[in-house]
Amino acid sequence: MPASVTDEPLALTALLSGPDQPGLVARSAGWIFERKGNILHADQHRDDTENVFFQRLEWTPAPGMDPAVLGAAFRSFAADQLGMHGRVALSTDQTRVALFVSKADHCFHDLVLRFLAGEMRGKIVCVISNHEALAAATKHYGIPFHYIPVTDATKPAAEARQLEVLRQNCAGLIVMARYMQILSANFLTRCGVPVINIHHSFLPAFAGGRPYHQAHARGVKLIGATAHYATANLDEGPIIAQDVTRISHRHNVEDIIRRGRDLEKAVCAQAVRWHLDNRILVYRNKTVIFD
Amino acid sequence: MPASVTDEPLALTALLSGPDQPGLVARSAGWIFERKGNILHADQHRDDTENVFFQRLEWTPAPGMDPAVLGAAFRSFAADQLGMHGRVALSTDQTRVALFVSKADHCFHDLVLRFLAGEMRGKIVCVISNHEALAAATKHYGIPFHYIPVTDATKPAAEARQLEVLRQNCAGLIVMARYMQILSANFLTRCGVPVINIHHSFLPAFAGGRPYHQAHARGVKLIGATAHYATANLDEGPIIAQDVTRISHRHNVEDIIRRGRDLEKAVCAQAVRWHLDNRILVYRNKTVIFD
Amino acid sequence: MPASVTDEPLALTALLSGPDQPGLVARSAGWIFERKGNILHADQHRDDTENVFFQRLEWTPAPGMDPAVLGAAFRSFAADQLGMHGRVALSTDQTRVALFVSKADHCFHDLVLRFLAGEMRGKIVCVISNHEALAAATKHYGIPFHYIPVTDATKPAAEARQLEVLRQNCAGLIVMARYMQILSANFLTRCGVPVINIHHSFLPAFAGGRPYHQAHARGVKLIGATAHYATANLDEGPIIAQDVTRISHRHNVEDIIRRGRDLEKAVCAQAVRWHLDNRILVYRNKTVIFD
Amino acid sequence: MPASVTDEPLALTALLSGPDQPGLVARSAGWIFERKGNILHADQHRDDTENVFFQRLEWTPAPGMDPAVLGAAFRSFAADQLGMHGRVALSTDQTRVALFVSKADHCFHDLVLRFLAGEMRGKIVCVISNHEALAAATKHYGIPFHYIPVTDATKPAAEARQLEVLRQNCAGLIVMARYMQILSANFLTRCGVPVINIHHSFLPAFAGGRPYHQAHARGVKLIGATAHYATANLDEGPIIAQDVTRISHRHNVEDIIRRGRDLEKAVCAQAVRWHLDNRILVYRNKTVIFD
Repeated sequence: MPASVTDEPLALTALLSGPDQPGLVARSAGWIFERKGNILHADQHRDDTENVFFQRLEWTPAPGMDPAVLGAAFRSFAADQLGMHGRVALSTDQTRVALFVSKADHCFHDLVLRFLAGEMRGKIVCVISNHEALAAATKHYGIPFHYIPVTDATKPAAEARQLEVLRQNCAGLIVMARYMQILSANFLTRCGVPVINIHHSFLPAFAGGRPYHQAHARGVKLIGATAHYATANLDEGPIIAQDVTRISHRHNVEDIIRRGRDLEKAVCAQAVRWHLDNRILVYRNKTVIFD
Repeated sequence: MPASVTDEPLALTALLSGPDQPGLVARSAGWIFERKGNILHADQHRDDTENVFFQRLEWTPAPGMDPAVLGAAFRSFAADQLGMHGRVALSTDQTRVALFVSKADHCFHDLVLRFLAGEMRGKIVCVISNHEALAAATKHYGIPFHYIPVTDATKPAAEARQLEVLRQNCAGLIVMARYMQILSANFLTRCGVPVINIHHSFLPAFAGGRPYHQAHARGVKLIGATAHYATANLDEGPIIAQDVTRISHRHNVEDIIRRGRDLEKAVCAQAVRWHLDNRILVYRNKTVIFD
Repeated sequence: MPASVTDEPLALTALLSGPDQPGLVARSAGWIFERKGNILHADQHRDDTENVFFQRLEWTPAPGMDPAVLGAAFRSFAADQLGMHGRVALSTDQTRVALFVSKADHCFHDLVLRFLAGEMRGKIVCVISNHEALAAATKHYGIPFHYIPVTDATKPAAEARQLEVLRQNCAGLIVMARYMQILSANFLTRCGVPVINIHHSFLPAFAGGRPYHQAHARGVKLIGATAHYATANLDEGPIIAQDVTRISHRHNVEDIIRRGRDLEKAVCAQAVRWHLDNRILVYRNKTVIFD
Repeated sequence: MPASVTDEPLALTALLSGPDQPGLVARSAGWIFERKGNILHADQHRDDTENVFFQRLEWTPAPGMDPAVLGAAFRSFAADQLGMHGRVALSTDQTRVALFVSKADHCFHDLVLRFLAGEMRGKIVCVISNHEALAAATKHYGIPFHYIPVTDATKPAAEARQLEVLRQNCAGLIVMARYMQILSANFLTRCGVPVINIHHSFLPAFAGGRPYHQAHARGVKLIGATAHYATANLDEGPIIAQDVTRISHRHNVEDIIRRGRDLEKAVCAQAVRWHLDNRILVYRNKTVIFD
């Protein structure tokens, strides 16, 4: 049976960034030590060019401390004393995830089965789709399915409806699991939560539509997939995870699409896992990933 | 000691392509069988979309046959009877290779050492450079070095001089081993031999100058290298080989450049080996590689 | 929607091996050509040491020919005239696959979803398990589930019952998708069909039980998975597919098990696909794979 | 031109391990902060099973401080106050490396060229060989060559001579770059410095002699290479780096050997670089690598 992520002792995870200065490691670690916490993992990164410091601290608090209060206190300390901003999560937090899908079901099944197997620190609370193709499968998994068709004319209304569903479900993360619609800049602003998209190419190569057809036409020897945070600039958001697989002249577009599906599943799941484990900091359209 | 490629029995290798039609395998194999040859390897590929047939045949002729005569005869047969065109090489052929280099020496050393180790079916007959940086190293390897500086003003004259050196050396292949000049369309036409270039990105991503800087700026998680045949359209020729390696936020541009060097060496050597082993057919700006 | 393998034109695939001799390619291709067939793919391999020739031919027959009759005729021709033995399959053949599972469900879901998506040339006709854990999931997929518990005492009876289920379902392939029981030599002989097993290590390293624990204890930097045909010698059958993934000191046994699951899924699916596509020849406990 | 590792500002690197206890991060970082040092990188690892804490700290000292004195002071502090043991290196340290070679030259050339290109934080001070094959090449690189033949009878005397050369050269690291002799337990004890060996298989598979022949005989689909610290138990020392490459039935033993050479070069260089960058801690026959 798969190991569940909830077997671990309660821990806090802080993800912070701010201007570099001497003493950041000592002072943040010192704050935790003074409160008798025990650091499990501590990762740092300095961007030499930008003089920015990034930090991930994971620690178990002393017995009897209220972790939520402690997290808020650390957050204030970091902001006020260190000039570092970010968030503090509890290991018991279960991010509520909304899946956006269309007809393709490979990332859908892969993600849902990983959540059900206890691989992911979160819960899929709803599936939103512009097609009914995955309604039955979603319901079989015991997840509410929301069919919200989208046309050029109805897009504003459809996005309003999507936002309503997200709010009702208190979604903290959106995953576009091969959702074949572009979310508007307005939607991305208003939804207020991170959106992870999986693009079926090794970005920045083959951005836009039909990337596997583009790859086949160019005669590349590797195809790729890229998971990134969605931004208003299509396919240009901060890259989280990428991988590639080898192809040859023997592979036609159909073969490439089939092989690509396996890549998309793996890369999308990797990005979602890192996000839910609070391992990703975004900075200047790039990601720092403490894996 | 490394195995030498010359220990093998004499063989002929035909690389052909032409319009697909039933019987091509049977008739080409039949021609060889009737002359008591023994097929060592036979590879085929059909491009379903274009209805083109590609074939690589490697066979040992019957004792006493003159392989050069046999090769010419097969070539005529394929052209006249099967409508297939291409070339026939002998396993004793040693392609005469000209290396173009600038200051970077990693692909240079790597390639030269592979030729000296007997890994490659060919011989490096000259090194041409627009800098003197690698003159001593080239001479140490016992290879003639030609220093031909290039400026915008002198480029036509420099290319004329390069062509002269190539002709004097009967070069059958040019390898741009991180040669930091663009060969003109005129040069590519007049040199009359294939030119392999190594570009330090996963094309078509990051074509043009300073690809590692571009990759770092975009925040990709994999960097790549691409070996391709040079054409008049810079970085757009038929791709022969590609590979990638993983990077993270921890890698600055210097780290990426260092890791990239290892990729460039491996990908360039792979492309040169496939070419010298007569494994590559070019078609519509793509390659068919019988590996 | 995924491409279905059944959209292709009807074709025959021959997989043959026998003593090498001149003319095998010409004569087998000639036989097909004389009957106005068109070769789609032709792959050959010679084992220089053993002097054995391996061949895979895929061709479309002339219109109006009965492909089953043609296949049988080719098989006789190959045996009688060329001394080559093997089998001939039709592209319309749907191998009937029996899955053996225990409690772990990752390879189970992965394989079933691939069959349902039309990725595989075959059909899962039954699931046999020594546990009831996957009964409901199996039934949801519309596949008959057979619960056959196994203890040391009941093993002979249980295997007899398994053989009966296999026979009733006309199973042509058994896949042990993390089935945690050893099939006896007697069973392997009597079942009369190939059995593919997925072992969760890079064989021959870490054969036997708890391979991920062994890998963690040894401190390796890569873990692997191996799909092989099951033989009477546990974990020593002919290897079909292998892959690895990188781990570090940061990964404990639980992490390794989770990462290993993704490897197992990919490697197992690859092996099953190659088998169903008639791409595998077994010889001297090794495989020749025409991919 | 390749970037030189010596362009960086002076830094200290501490590599420590000891029993885990709360406050180790805070107190070690605090010690540095109190002396106005600035931490560049800080990596930690806890072995949950063994309750051991591992730490790598890289920091720039305040101007005017003597780094050697500071390093010694930190080492005492860590030992006395934290119960953590290990070493502190200066970024200006240049480890003096002795290469042991036999006849194979691929790792030899690869390593020497990397040192000459400034990729490695160290200097090759001597080459020791039981054959004269690489004498001229070594001298061309400007490195002293010591020919010390070894037979069963002369082994003790040869090892004594090797130890003398190592001592005269103040070697701080030995790299067995395909040295085809086993160093005795006595030698390993007496040399007093780490020894990195490159084994041409994916250990623990195919330990011992002729691993590529073993791999070919078993029919594996991937071959590997492993760099490890040499211990008295042949091929069983702590693994530093491993990598694999794909092979198929088409590759005979010669092909495998050639492809393996590229693996050996890459894996050996990686291990040596990590060692020279003070990134490796050894514990219970395993390595913690802070990369």
